[in-house]
Amino acid sequence: MRVLIFVSYDGTSYGGWQKQNNAPSIEEELDRAISNLFGEEIHVIGASRTDAGVHSAGSAAVFDVESRMPADKVAYALNARLPEDIRVMSSKEVPSDFHPRHTDTVKTYCYRIYTGRIMDPRFRLYMHQVYVPLDIEKMRAAAEVLEGEHDFKSFSSTATQVTDFVRTIFKIEIVEINHGIEIRVTGNGFLYNMVRIIAGTLIDVGRGQTDVSEIEGILEARNREAAGPTAPAKGLSLEEIRFLELE
Amino acid sequence: MRVLIFVSYDGTSYGGWQKQNNAPSIEEELDRAISNLFGEEIHVIGASRTDAGVHSAGSAAVFDVESRMPADKVAYALNARLPEDIRVMSSKEVPSDFHPRHTDTVKTYCYRIYTGRIMDPRFRLYMHQVYVPLDIEKMRAAAEVLEGEHDFKSFSSTATQVTDFVRTIFKIEIVEINHGIEIRVTGNGFLYNMVRIIAGTLIDVGRGQTDVSEIEGILEARNREAAGPTAPAKGLSLEEIRFLELE
Repeated sequence: MRVLIFVSYDGTSYGGWQKQNNAPSIEEELDRAISNLFGEEIHVIGASRTDAGVHSAGSAAVFDVESRMPADKVAYALNARLPEDIRVMSSKEVPSDFHPRHTDTVKTYCYRIYTGRIMDPRFRLYMHQVYVPLDIEKMRAAAEVLEGEHDFKSFSSTATQVTDFVRTIFKIEIVEINHGIEIRVTGNGFLYNMVRIIAGTLIDVGRGQTDVSEIEGILEARNREAAGPTAPAKGLSLEEIRFLELE
Repeated sequence: MRVLIFVSYDGTSYGGWQKQNNAPSIEEELDRAISNLFGEEIHVIGASRTDAGVHSAGSAAVFDVESRMPADKVAYALNARLPEDIRVMSSKEVPSDFHPRHTDTVKTYCYRIYTGRIMDPRFRLYMHQVYVPLDIEKMRAAAEVLEGEHDFKSFSSTATQVTDFVRTIFKIEIVEINHGIEIRVTGNGFLYNMVRIIAGTLIDVGRGQTDVSEIEGILEARNREAAGPTAPAKGLSLEEIRFLELE
């Protein structure tokens, strides 16, 4: 059977989702726990990667296994074998031809900004501190320009092999929360570092360094240097992945 | 001058507030940073202690120093010398005879309970997971019995040299939050482990193991064994200390 798992993690101690030589990874921990549970070497196929220090409340992956264990019990069995900073929140059986990267998805990322003068230690690993006041209405106006279908090349890391930079952002919500601001971005797909560059650009707007009227030109430039900085990893969290064919 | 500092910390990596031989402590880190800043050996006097793993968003301490540094700048200078999981949130000069333990205070503690089936990794160090459903209305009814002036000997660790167990709880609020429940306890002073035992007892009420009608008898017993278990440290946070003579 093919099993789909939804995974949450605190990315602080990991080099990111993807297996790598020099740091522990989420993928490696999942492969180890799943292989240990079923007594054979099993590899997950992830729906999307996150960078070092990025968190997740809703990553997804599939793997294949022959087992009589009910698919919905797999989550509990895996959690007993995973470190506490990675949790499988749910598991279920999916069609054997379901592939988490070759299917229509709706993904939501959240970027959290701490706006207090001194960082509360409990949030230090999950929020990015901005010292200057942010004009949230200007940030909302700039975000609105980014909504919809656009070529987001200006909002992509240059370290990518992608050639089609057109993506659709369904919605960007900017919400005041305790101690700060959340930027929630929902779309059908994201380029490498896209949400962190959007966050960095919206922060520049909020602090008055970039004007709302410049956003249109930044998109049209199709040049990474036109947009703002890549905001730090720890403020980012992948919140949800919806697979439309499973709904 | 006597300087009052308000301190927040993530207690995860510490053996508690108080200096000790086998683990790093908040007090030790503060003494080190303050002594380093002013170039002489300085010791803080804390307003209250927290146990290993307990967090704080509002601990307080004073120290004496001869310096021309404006007292309100001390916070920033200390933060440059402290680990990231300890932050001095503010600093100010107070009368030289002000003593943070020999003065009327109003303290608020918060105990956070995670009620989801699987612990979200981002909350694992800051919330205590309870697997069974909790009846919040029953918890509120039990909390109401504990409000006011009572002898709280049943709600004190036996590892104490205190002989007067009478304290006043001004208010216990039980609030539904994202993923769980917060128990906010405000009072004029607390016995050793008092909030954690109150939390453990209210959890027993919420899960139906203790009836609301039993709370009165638990207070009257003046016996630690009458109350519920001491809830785990990581769910507890000292939220605020108010010094009435400074207001």
